[in-house]
Parts: sequence; C-alpha cells; structure tokens
Amino acid sequence: MEEQVVSYAELFSFTSAVFAKIGCSYEDANLATKVLLSADLRGIDSHGVARLIGYIRLYEAGRINPVPDIKIIHQTPSTATVNGDKGLGLVVAPKAMNIAIEKAKQIGSGWVSVTNSNHYGIAAAHAMLALEHDMIGISMTNASALVAPTFSIERMLGTNPICVAIPAGGQPAFVADLATTTAANGKLEILQRKNMDAPVGWIQDKEGNAVTDAHALKNGGALLPLGSDREHGSHKGYALGAVVDIFSAVLSGANYGPWVPPFPAYVPMPENMPGEGIGHFFGAMRIDGFRPTEEFKKNMDQWIERFRSAKTVKGQQQVLIPGDPEREAEIERAKNGIPLHATVVSDLKELAAKHNIPFFF
Amino acid sequence: MEEQVVSYAELFSFTSAVFAKIGCSYEDANLATKVLLSADLRGIDSHGVARLIGYIRLYEAGRINPVPDIKIIHQTPSTATVNGDKGLGLVVAPKAMNIAIEKAKQIGSGWVSVTNSNHYGIAAAHAMLALEHDMIGISMTNASALVAPTFSIERMLGTNPICVAIPAGGQPAFVADLATTTAANGKLEILQRKNMDAPVGWIQDKEGNAVTDAHALKNGGALLPLGSDREHGSHKGYALGAVVDIFSAVLSGANYGPWVPPFPAYVPMPENMPGEGIGHFFGAMRIDGFRPTEEFKKNMDQWIERFRSAKTVKGQQQVLIPGDPEREAEIERAKNGIPLHATVVSDLKELAAKHNIPFFF
Repeated sequence: MEEQVVSYAELFSFTSAVFAKIGCSYEDANLATKVLLSADLRGIDSHGVARLIGYIRLYEAGRINPVPDIKIIHQTPSTATVNGDKGLGLVVAPKAMNIAIEKAKQIGSGWVSVTNSNHYGIAAAHAMLALEHDMIGISMTNASALVAPTFSIERMLGTNPICVAIPAGGQPAFVADLATTTAANGKLEILQRKNMDAPVGWIQDKEGNAVTDAHALKNGGALLPLGSDREHGSHKGYALGAVVDIFSAVLSGANYGPWVPPFPAYVPMPENMPGEGIGHFFGAMRIDGFRPTEEFKKNMDQWIERFRSAKTVKGQQQVLIPGDPEREAEIERAKNGIPLHATVVSDLKELAAKHNIPFFF
Repeated sequence: MEEQVVSYAELFSFTSAVFAKIGCSYEDANLATKVLLSADLRGIDSHGVARLIGYIRLYEAGRINPVPDIKIIHQTPSTATVNGDKGLGLVVAPKAMNIAIEKAKQIGSGWVSVTNSNHYGIAAAHAMLALEHDMIGISMTNASALVAPTFSIERMLGTNPICVAIPAGGQPAFVADLATTTAANGKLEILQRKNMDAPVGWIQDKEGNAVTDAHALKNGGALLPLGSDREHGSHKGYALGAVVDIFSAVLSGANYGPWVPPFPAYVPMPENMPGEGIGHFFGAMRIDGFRPTEEFKKNMDQWIERFRSAKTVKGQQQVLIPGDPEREAEIERAKNGIPLHATVVSDLKELAAKHNIPFFF
C-alpha cells in the first residue's frame, strides 16, 4: 500500500486552511482541525484527515453551516440541550463538552445533549477535555445506520461510539473509546481495500446470514452489534448502541435510528426525518464531587498497575489499559509524522487545487 | 428438573420474615425483599430468592450489618458518595438511588457512588425507580472477580452489570440491563447443573484457551468479556466492565478489581483489600432537564415502534426492545407464580427450620 508520511504541523496547516476556505472563522478552523487530526495522531486513520473531503462535500451540499450560532436551548443547573445550528460536529462537540465541564465546575457534574450537529470525529477528542480539570469525561454520538439489531435484517443504528476518559495520578489516563459494534467500520474498509475476508461475526448479508465477504454491506448487508450473535450477547451491543442513540438524539431532538443523515454527501437523505441533524451526548463529573482527588488518583494508579501486571495468556506480553495503543500512537506520530494512504493524499490534492491552497507535501 | 411454583405474595411474606429474623427493620426487610424478588418476577432466577441463603450466610459470617447507618460522606449539589455501612446492597442501593433522584429533582441530575455495600440484586431494580419520576435511571455495580481481561488468564473483574432505564409515553419503558460479559454467570450455572457444554466464546480455561466445559471456572478458568475474543471486540467488553468497576469503587472508596469480596461466605476474603465492601454507581437525569417531557415521549414511542417493526431475519418473529422479555416474565409470574428449582426450595426449607419461620409452600 502506497503511503506518504506528513508531519502533524504541515497537516494541521493545510487542514485549517481548508476549513477557513469554506468560511469557518480562524478559531473554528483551528478547533475543527485539532479535533479531526487527533484521530490521525491517535492511529484512528478512518476518522481523521481521510474524512476531510467528506466534510467539505457536506458543506458543498448545504448540510454544514460554517458560521453556526451554537446555543443552549434548554437547561437546568446540571443539564443542557445545545443546538449546533448545522455546524461542523468538530466544532459543536468541543463547545458542548465545555458547557458540561463548566456546569461540573459549578455543581459537581454537567450533562449536555446536542441536536442539529454533524459528525464529530473521534469520541475521545471530546471526553478527554475533562481530564485536565480532574474530571471524568463522557462522549457519545449517533451516526447513520449501518448496524442491524439482533434478529433484524434492517440497518437501524450507527456504530454509535462511547468514550469514557478517567484521570489517574502518575499513570496515564484511562481512555476507553469504543464503537458499540463487533468491529469498527474503518476496519472493514481496510479489508475492502485489500480485498480480504472479514472474520465471521463482523457482518451479515441482506438476509441476515453471517458472512465473511467484506463487501456485504454494499449489497444490503449490515454490521453486527458487539457480541456478533444472540448466543454471544449481540442483544447487549444492540442495547448499548440504542442507549447512545437515545441519549444523543431522542433527548435532544436530533434524528435517530434509521433517520440519521448519512456522511457521504451523495447518499440521499432519509424521508420523514423526525429531528434535526445528528445528535451527541456529553458528560463531565468532578472527581472531587465524590472523593478527594488525591485519594482517587492513588487508587486509580493502583487499579491501572494491577491490571497492567495481570498474568497473560502465553504469547501475549501485557494486559493493556484502555487508551494504551492510542497514546503510544500519538507519541510516535507526533514525533515521526502521520502516514497517509495514497488515496487520501490524492483527495487532499483535489481539495488544494479546488480551493487554491498551497499543497506542500 | 424438579420445580415448585410459589405465588409472589407467599414468597414475599417468607423472604421478608427471613430478613426480619436477622435483625432488619420491618421497612428494610420489605425493601430488601422487594428488590430481591424483582429478579424472580423478571425471570432472572439466578439473582433472586435463590440467593437468599447466600445473603444470610454473609450475615452469619459478620459481613452484613442488618441495621446500617447509610449516609452521605461527600457531596456537591449534583453528586454524592454514600457509605452503606456494610448493609445489604438490597437496602443500600435503593436508598442511594433515591438520593440521585432527589438531586435530579433539584437541579436536573444526580449521581451517586456507593462504598461499603454488598450485592444489590438486579441492576434494573434500582435504575427503574427513576421511571415514575420521568427520569432516566442508571445503575451499575461491581462484583467479585470472575472475568479475565483480554490477553489475561487472571480473573480481574466481576460480571459488572449496567442498567439504563428510559421512560416512554404509550410504549413501555426501555430497560437495558446487561452484564458486561458474553454470558451471565447464571446462564453458565444452568449448564453446569445440566452437565451441558457452553458455547465457544463464553469461557476460557486456566491457560486462556477457549473451552466449552461449563465447569472450567471451577478449575481456574474465567468468564470472557462481552465480545469473547480480541477479534470480536472482547477489549470493548473488558473496557465497559472496567468503567463499571472504577465508577462503582475507585470513585467511592470500595474494593475494586481482584479485591472485591466474594459472594459465597465460605470463600476467603482477598488479601490487602484497598477499600470497603462492594461499590455501586447510580444516576438519574430528568427528561425535562433536556427537553419538554411530552416531546421526548412522543419521539421515544416512535423510536420503540420503529425498532419493533424492523424487518426480521427469516424465522424470527420480531425485533425486541431491551426490557421486553423481562416485562413479559413479570406479567406472567405476577399472575401465575414463580417457579423455584428443587435446590432452591430445599435451601428455603433449611432457612425456615433454622430461623423458626413457618414454611407454607
């Protein structure tokens, strides 16, 4: 596979120039870039700059407002609903998360549901904002339907990720960021590009049979909820994805289930949509709302150290703590640069030419 | 399998008499009974009256205080930590959940972490308390270690369930109550009793090999996190179980990971325990903290109706909404009685004789 390695600084400069060209303010262009590229830094290539052209196409289709008036439309001291005004989720989400954090500063915790937004990048980018405040951060979003509930052949849910970020003391933070499916769609896309089979349990065909053809989704198939099948708990993955959908969209007034707008701008919008845009949900809880922070951190360090030193299956070096692989990727890529697939470089060149932005890598 | 069917009223009367005999107040005995038997009513036989003798043995071992002084030891307007004073989790948990509900009434949401408690029955019993207040209820608990994290051969986590209960309008509430493992331990116990094999993906042996011997846990094996293996997302089930452990115990000062006290009174306590008892975590969020309740309920009804009518795989009648099977069991068993396995009846007879309680079924 052809790859080109680009430094974070160069990629940042280019990406923020693209967002500025569609009319984002300087601040918003930088914020969107920071969120988008946090995926590339953390090794989640499917959700980073590879999607930049997709965001721009949504803008061109009139589905993204580059100068949104993001505001609270309903609130109590500890809760709020935010209307994203069709803004980039990359901008709406961190602003909504910061509202949750501000509420937590005041009264211990803050919970924000978001309507009328768009795709927000990786869930961890937002949940992790809580860490520097010694808070637990929670982030989730719905997405367009690719996943069939247990017993169904219809795509009813997105891959609906959940992130929980928990601060520690001497140890790095615990950051669990997971799609509520057996496999993330990005992993399937890699197999599609390589024309390789998927493991049994990742996808089903249009009749609901377990299949290994990585292209089955294009032919009416569906991704499977975490658990894969009923016997292995797919009803639990379905339930978790459903909770994400309801917290993000039924609570806020966004679209839910099969009505969530698709990311590819060429896919027609669902009919009879019950809400506005895509929904997210954020939470922030102050550690010292429960316990003195230093006591918590001491125990959290012990938790992490004990799990990291658990006896391993033969052939495995170590039990990992959620967030370990992404943190290691971030250190490595911040230093050595971000590898871009040839198709991504080609997309970026297309954007550069179209928007008359210097392309320097 | 020999079974005896007993009415809910008879079982309630007997069970509350047993709790009264160990010194619980009249109110606490009734509360503990209501919580315990909600499992039997909802068809979760493993967590109901079958465990009554286990709770009594914990009392006899000095591990349960029948007259606990349950109190808030730390709080902000939206958060609290509650010390259960070694009480029955069946009593501590609903009282802590009610603190979360009271906070939500005041300022939109309430979040309570609990230390120094014991097993609390089914997670749904507590989360569902929020429903009558038009709130979303959340309940989770840690438990003694039976589950090996991905890549590990050590039991480090309990089956750590999560329940999310969400009110609807004309439709019944959405109630997702799930262990963060592929299969609940209760299901494995049924296979053990019948000497049947377990499906591949539920358990591993002491070396970490996937096995079907339902007795593997007794020989140093472990339950597997939701997802079963790395390729099918077991790291996600492990992360979810870890979040439950941290919210319930690291946040409150209870025991976590491999240090959580075991339910069977004859199993020795872990060494060097870092906290007190078992931990729980509860949340309550007012629907109208986000959106007018009637608007939410209208959309929630549509969500439920749309999912219930999703096209099914051939041979399946309907896509289920989380909580459907338990609600149907509750209607049926409230009317026709609760089937008790012969070994459970024998345990109850033993309790009756020992505590001089009339045994009338």
